[in-house]
Amino acid sequence: MKLKEIYHFLNELSPFELQEKWDNSGLLVGNFEDEIEKVYISIDLDEEILESMDENSLVITHHPLIFSPLRRVNYDTYSSKLLKILIQKNIALISMHTNIDKTHLNRFVAKEILGLDLIESDEYICYANVDEEFDSFATKIARSLGLEYLKYVKCNQRVKKVALVTGAGMSLIDEVNADCFLTGDIKYHDAMEAKARGISLIDIRHYESEKHFSPLLEGLLEEYLKKNKLKAIITASKNPFKFCIQGETVE
Amino acid sequence: MKLKEIYHFLNELSPFELQEKWDNSGLLVGNFEDEIEKVYISIDLDEEILESMDENSLVITHHPLIFSPLRRVNYDTYSSKLLKILIQKNIALISMHTNIDKTHLNRFVAKEILGLDLIESDEYICYANVDEEFDSFATKIARSLGLEYLKYVKCNQRVKKVALVTGAGMSLIDEVNADCFLTGDIKYHDAMEAKARGISLIDIRHYESEKHFSPLLEGLLEEYLKKNKLKAIITASKNPFKFCIQGETVE
Amino acid sequence: MKLKEIYHFLNELSPFELQEKWDNSGLLVGNFEDEIEKVYISIDLDEEILESMDENSLVITHHPLIFSPLRRVNYDTYSSKLLKILIQKNIALISMHTNIDKTHLNRFVAKEILGLDLIESDEYICYANVDEEFDSFATKIARSLGLEYLKYVKCNQRVKKVALVTGAGMSLIDEVNADCFLTGDIKYHDAMEAKARGISLIDIRHYESEKHFSPLLEGLLEEYLKKNKLKAIITASKNPFKFCIQGETVE
Amino acid sequence: MKLKEIYHFLNELSPFELQEKWDNSGLLVGNFEDEIEKVYISIDLDEEILESMDENSLVITHHPLIFSPLRRVNYDTYSSKLLKILIQKNIALISMHTNIDKTHLNRFVAKEILGLDLIESDEYICYANVDEEFDSFATKIARSLGLEYLKYVKCNQRVKKVALVTGAGMSLIDEVNADCFLTGDIKYHDAMEAKARGISLIDIRHYESEKHFSPLLEGLLEEYLKKNKLKAIITASKNPFKFCIQGETVE
Amino acid sequence: MKLKEIYHFLNELSPFELQEKWDNSGLLVGNFEDEIEKVYISIDLDEEILESMDENSLVITHHPLIFSPLRRVNYDTYSSKLLKILIQKNIALISMHTNIDKTHLNRFVAKEILGLDLIESDEYICYANVDEEFDSFATKIARSLGLEYLKYVKCNQRVKKVALVTGAGMSLIDEVNADCFLTGDIKYHDAMEAKARGISLIDIRHYESEKHFSPLLEGLLEEYLKKNKLKAIITASKNPFKFCIQGETVE
Amino acid sequence: MKLKEIYHFLNELSPFELQEKWDNSGLLVGNFEDEIEKVYISIDLDEEILESMDENSLVITHHPLIFSPLRRVNYDTYSSKLLKILIQKNIALISMHTNIDKTHLNRFVAKEILGLDLIESDEYICYANVDEEFDSFATKIARSLGLEYLKYVKCNQRVKKVALVTGAGMSLIDEVNADCFLTGDIKYHDAMEAKARGISLIDIRHYESEKHFSPLLEGLLEEYLKKNKLKAIITASKNPFKFCIQGETVE
Repeated sequence: MKLKEIYHFLNELSPFELQEKWDNSGLLVGNFEDEIEKVYISIDLDEEILESMDENSLVITHHPLIFSPLRRVNYDTYSSKLLKILIQKNIALISMHTNIDKTHLNRFVAKEILGLDLIESDEYICYANVDEEFDSFATKIARSLGLEYLKYVKCNQRVKKVALVTGAGMSLIDEVNADCFLTGDIKYHDAMEAKARGISLIDIRHYESEKHFSPLLEGLLEEYLKKNKLKAIITASKNPFKFCIQGETVE
Repeated sequence: MKLKEIYHFLNELSPFELQEKWDNSGLLVGNFEDEIEKVYISIDLDEEILESMDENSLVITHHPLIFSPLRRVNYDTYSSKLLKILIQKNIALISMHTNIDKTHLNRFVAKEILGLDLIESDEYICYANVDEEFDSFATKIARSLGLEYLKYVKCNQRVKKVALVTGAGMSLIDEVNADCFLTGDIKYHDAMEAKARGISLIDIRHYESEKHFSPLLEGLLEEYLKKNKLKAIITASKNPFKFCIQGETVE
Repeated sequence: MKLKEIYHFLNELSPFELQEKWDNSGLLVGNFEDEIEKVYISIDLDEEILESMDENSLVITHHPLIFSPLRRVNYDTYSSKLLKILIQKNIALISMHTNIDKTHLNRFVAKEILGLDLIESDEYICYANVDEEFDSFATKIARSLGLEYLKYVKCNQRVKKVALVTGAGMSLIDEVNADCFLTGDIKYHDAMEAKARGISLIDIRHYESEKHFSPLLEGLLEEYLKKNKLKAIITASKNPFKFCIQGETVE
Repeated sequence: MKLKEIYHFLNELSPFELQEKWDNSGLLVGNFEDEIEKVYISIDLDEEILESMDENSLVITHHPLIFSPLRRVNYDTYSSKLLKILIQKNIALISMHTNIDKTHLNRFVAKEILGLDLIESDEYICYANVDEEFDSFATKIARSLGLEYLKYVKCNQRVKKVALVTGAGMSLIDEVNADCFLTGDIKYHDAMEAKARGISLIDIRHYESEKHFSPLLEGLLEEYLKKNKLKAIITASKNPFKFCIQGETVE
Repeated sequence: MKLKEIYHFLNELSPFELQEKWDNSGLLVGNFEDEIEKVYISIDLDEEILESMDENSLVITHHPLIFSPLRRVNYDTYSSKLLKILIQKNIALISMHTNIDKTHLNRFVAKEILGLDLIESDEYICYANVDEEFDSFATKIARSLGLEYLKYVKCNQRVKKVALVTGAGMSLIDEVNADCFLTGDIKYHDAMEAKARGISLIDIRHYESEKHFSPLLEGLLEEYLKKNKLKAIITASKNPFKFCIQGETVE
Repeated sequence: MKLKEIYHFLNELSPFELQEKWDNSGLLVGNFEDEIEKVYISIDLDEEILESMDENSLVITHHPLIFSPLRRVNYDTYSSKLLKILIQKNIALISMHTNIDKTHLNRFVAKEILGLDLIESDEYICYANVDEEFDSFATKIARSLGLEYLKYVKCNQRVKKVALVTGAGMSLIDEVNADCFLTGDIKYHDAMEAKARGISLIDIRHYESEKHFSPLLEGLLEEYLKKNKLKAIITASKNPFKFCIQGETVE
């Protein structure tokens, strides 16, 4: 199957032109005329996962491998190291990042993974009414995402309205219209800002809130690939973080 | 005592012109001719801490209250909300940020708090030889900083050479010349980058690695203030983050 | 009465989104949820006028207090000195600048103050046919604005078509399609440029041509405020300039 | 005499490389190899003055004719209209602007025209101790410059230390370290700013404070030109401004 | 006849607002109110051609004389040297560059000069089906343009689809959708790029492919000028290049 | 032999930090720790030349393969197509561009290839006194470079002083202080500019004037490589241009 045929299907599913200006979604490695024999789906790439893939295949990731354009390819950075393996194994790479965030991913995680009843959603932010004690709500969220350990900022005893952005959404704080915000990669100054504004935060983590990209896309692609006698193989780059308490690994 | 006198003493201690271009260290609120009656030291400001302070005093913080220049003062953001209290209580604010990082703080934390034997240090990064199992080294670091819970990326079983930057230092990864890097506010993509490069990470957190600013500065100011019949009062804005495991608070 | 209610009324009167990109009209100091007890109107702020105002009030000015965003608040500049008093007296500030220039002020001054019969007007420039000796026309303009003393550039004996921009309008010279241009703050190089182009200039001054903002806005607000049991108090920051002839004060 | 020879003499007198980045001093019209028969000096150019000049001459002005680079030459602006005459009469133009401000003009006006005893001077600003009533000092300044009519901002009864910049110097207000500032082209917002800072202003006007460029340069060139059997002809573009009081011309 | 009348006719023929942002088409020298007695047309200007023109005439060129805005007019560059003659002879200059490329010139050259059957054309690029041996096609093109000598890059034995841009069109290579591209001023790196992409190139030269501007415009203007009792005089700046083989001039 | 060792030798020969800001000289593909078995030298890369090279080798080119940083690697451009082969064959690439232009190449071509007696040279431009008829001088230059066919602009019958820049040097025209300029890739507007300035041009072509990079570098490396038991293999990407006259190939 030609790479460009899958690309066009994906583009109809979630148009690449919806991506943000700073993003780099689309066909990052490989040529539209390449013949594809296998399709892999993963939130990201790492060396291990690439080793396990067959040559002449296509991998679809959520995060673009290349963000800063490359002036040199020295195999000593995340991008250039993995680019080398992709090219040597002739594996093509398509990334679906902010386009699928907007069209599917945020809402999928909010509804299917966290079980929230959405009342509205804009480009990135999903909203749900909650009206529950903060502690029990936070515990429920942690359980849904499989987080043993939870980091949060608690401004109010009760959560009334919650906002959600998967991945790292703190740059959207000015637009959040809720008393509790769920997102990942929350930094210290973000937390100070939210606390001053009276907005509670629950860190749903970047990897753990976005790894659902793979089953989501697999479901969306299944029928189409079957017709073309291909199968999407869900795989997963590893979460680079480990967590321990007093020396005991908890995650 | 005139505000400008203390300012000049601080400027000799750690020249403000050493700050980075994007930084905003210096006299942020108040006038050089103000008369100061009391001096507070804190890593940051929050509402609670400002309420506890006396009028007509000076507070010295590590982080500048104002980063993005203000076009409006609507009391609905971290900066403008606290600016209001500062002005209404006539409290002056001096921030010592990247200047003191360079002249004192990074090395102070490395040596006095973490007990590392420094072999070299450039503008921000301190280096020490370690040669120890990663797990026991990480446990020791956590204990020194009082971290119950630890987040890390482990690339090698043994740590040989360690690099340290307090606060949020991942933007310096290109300059790190060590197999293990200690810094705070580590995001998911930072972790992926470091893992690909084979550099282990231990997240020493932003607040927890920089709150030592207060005793450090207190020690540096003590004698000078005594001569001027003033006393530095160490106080501390609260860590906005809480941590729990399966609903049980751990920190 | 809530600040946001007045703000919305003003926004319907003269939408803030009409302002120029470099402008800073809108709610500059204060929070939309503030309760307002009194409303003042003035072309600008100065220390004297702020001293005379009651706490917890709102002042509406023509010129924004803050133009260059503030990185420091040292009470030693126009903006920061007056910002301090506003915050300490909890006085809110709304500025209506280029938005009201476009919707009302230029035409109000042309018609009501100068008595011109407008034939057309674009965003900022009002036009009138005149056909009168330059000297008598200039004298009439001076009398209407209460200017004892007049500065001008005379290119033609007779004025045929006049253009008007209140405040400082010389940057619009390229668009002026008339033989005489009335505006304020005319600088020497502006005068040389106009003279070469054969366009006469009459300096109607910045303050004197725009102080009419206060009665204009008072008229527009009167009914609305009455319904809300408030009253707009017209006040006026002082013209900073004095004029004398051979030591004798003329204005 | 070759144009380049005079240029080199001027360049030694007041090096053109001292000019500000935004300035355009130097040889603006004409070729270094041109043969020059006559030299004129004027603060600026206008049509009348150019008509009176001989062909194949050189005119030296204070202000550069061209500030905004020309993409079109349509004879309908100050620059392009006068450029046409210069080229048609083959008159060369050299401008000495911020270079001579720094090396000679500001100090010349302060000392020779205003009779001030300078205590210091930086790049543009000259300082003198005064200690005199504001009114009598202002009257004296007006008389020295031949100003019938005077515009000023008075913050203090007495002038202690005065700062001076010829031309339009209000953009230097942040550097002024005096209680009274003399400069030209003072706009309304400049006046508000100075008043808030407590700095009195006396508007010494742009043309009137800089027309002394001509006799200054004539003195500096005299001997050199005599040796080359040339003579500098002082001429003067007209002040474009007229002033009247209640219809009566005062200047 | 007034210059502005001809300008408006040209503007209807090929609207100047169609020009690219970096272009400088329009009335470059002269005033809209000028009275025109003669009209010349040429691809460009040079000293010889200007000498041959009558005073008070208009010349219409393809390339704008001024590209980089002029800060100085020293008669030592292409622009300033010829500008001097234009102004001294009071000759006005209108340039029609990327506007007429888009509306007429590219298609005119493709059809009338090269005899191609166009199948489509976008803003700049014209396309034709060819299906011919590269060598015979290239020889035919050379003959049509009067090129003795030909420079080319040959990637395929047969030309199937050809793209054409007159002047220097290699910056459009990313948009070219053909196996052979005809344009001028092809540089070495352009050739390397095209060769890697498998696109053949035939260098139709800048001057030789655009000198057809003159007869094209003459045809378009003829009737209009006749009505106004004027005549367009086709003239031609010289091709600056000469070509020789082993010392023998070939062009 | 480690790649970094050869890199350091090259860096001492011609420091990479001498390169222009827009340039991209240095190690473009490959890792400093790579083991190198063979060294190739070529002015550029093309598919044919890469096919002929052994795996695990190093190629040193004059022109950087990557100029515009890569956001995508789609094998459809010069850079990305050849990058694929380099990576798949594990061939490292070092480019020495403006650094070696400055330290060696321009002077080498001027003296060794063209036989000129240099009187001076700045960063890029070499100068020689000539004093010869233009035609015979041009013929001699063509012969030295092996150019059958020559393109030139002739402004004077005699060449007195000649300036030379290999490659494409027309952007340096403002600095050229000679009556004849030798460089490559001369475009039509460049020729018009030079003609107006009275500077003759001889187009020594980009490829033909810079292919001497290979023997130059081979000579500089020979001894060093011998010591390391390696040999530099001079190879050459093909000149993409062909030339014919009336259908007959001349080059």
